[in-house]
Amino acid sequence: MLTLFYAPGTCALASHIVLEEVGATYETVRIDFKAESQRKPDYLKINPKGRVPALVTDQGILTETPAILAFICQSFSGAGLAQLDDPFAFAQVQSFNSYLCSTVHVAHANRMRGHRWVDADDAHSIAAMQRKVPETVGACFDMIESDMLQGPWVMGENYTICDPYLFTLAQWLEGDGVDPDRIPKIIDHRRRVAEREAVKRALADEQ
Amino acid sequence: MLTLFYAPGTCALASHIVLEEVGATYETVRIDFKAESQRKPDYLKINPKGRVPALVTDQGILTETPAILAFICQSFSGAGLAQLDDPFAFAQVQSFNSYLCSTVHVAHANRMRGHRWVDADDAHSIAAMQRKVPETVGACFDMIESDMLQGPWVMGENYTICDPYLFTLAQWLEGDGVDPDRIPKIIDHRRRVAEREAVKRALADEQ
Repeated sequence: MLTLFYAPGTCALASHIVLEEVGATYETVRIDFKAESQRKPDYLKINPKGRVPALVTDQGILTETPAILAFICQSFSGAGLAQLDDPFAFAQVQSFNSYLCSTVHVAHANRMRGHRWVDADDAHSIAAMQRKVPETVGACFDMIESDMLQGPWVMGENYTICDPYLFTLAQWLEGDGVDPDRIPKIIDHRRRVAEREAVKRALADEQ
Repeated sequence: MLTLFYAPGTCALASHIVLEEVGATYETVRIDFKAESQRKPDYLKINPKGRVPALVTDQGILTETPAILAFICQSFSGAGLAQLDDPFAFAQVQSFNSYLCSTVHVAHANRMRGHRWVDADDAHSIAAMQRKVPETVGACFDMIESDMLQGPWVMGENYTICDPYLFTLAQWLEGDGVDPDRIPKIIDHRRRVAEREAVKRALADEQ
């Protein structure tokens, strides 16, 4: 049995979608970010980082989206959500997901989590970081649009674990001040991912 | 043939060490960060992100350290640098490396690359981000010390691709203002990784 700890509107959606895509048997536990439940002792026993997602498995607990996505993909290899028998093809999937995790998500986080990086009462610096978000997140999506998204799916003809992860981060575009008209391929991709039944089920469950 | 594009003192060292550990046939190309060569057209053709490392393979170019490390590990599976036949064990390796990439390295980068996140002439905010680095990087290493580093190696009895990556980021501790006395397990780990012949060869090549 698998249990996914998530919060709505977070990157945990990617893991949620992939669990649906592979037909896994799983439960979800919603963490209430407004009540700061992710910082409370009960949850810190699950994930000492105080973040979501966390995936509880029979073998132990996993955190970090790229690791969780690859784990689900390998555990349900029949679903074909990445080319697992070719190290280079798998590395391309991993490279894309690593970029989303370590660059795109990080740039986005400066909009609401600038207090991580400066003193919490430094309103000037926190506002300065927020003002830069449209530019930095926009630059990330420009690069995905021009250099990474092969089409129709991220890796080309095959839908992989990259697609729900890009879809998840693309939910935040407009809120981050990025003009969707400059990235038509990504917007078209987002629309097509949204039409998948697994995605509709994951989104409905989170509402 | 493999070619690693790197710069001294960067996270590319982790990939360099792993190439040595597995006995790969490879070349290295040094990118001169002082001359900003990573932003010049020749290099942007290799890696449009303008970062290192980049690994040129016969199948194409790979970027992002977690993806490169897993690729080398899978391509030279006889070297045993991760438990590849167990999705959960492999996911634990990936989770650790993803944390280094998306949280520890990001926290460190605010010391010298705050200009990524605010206007380049905003000296107040850039200084504010720098001042916070000892606290944020220190908190990351505290968590590695208490919750992640199993000992003697990161994943326990087996040396994996996590070890050279932790070793690489641990090179920056003192520069980031983290007191090494608070993380004795990590310092001991760093000392033991430094004694490995593959590590000595990679470091010598970068000097």
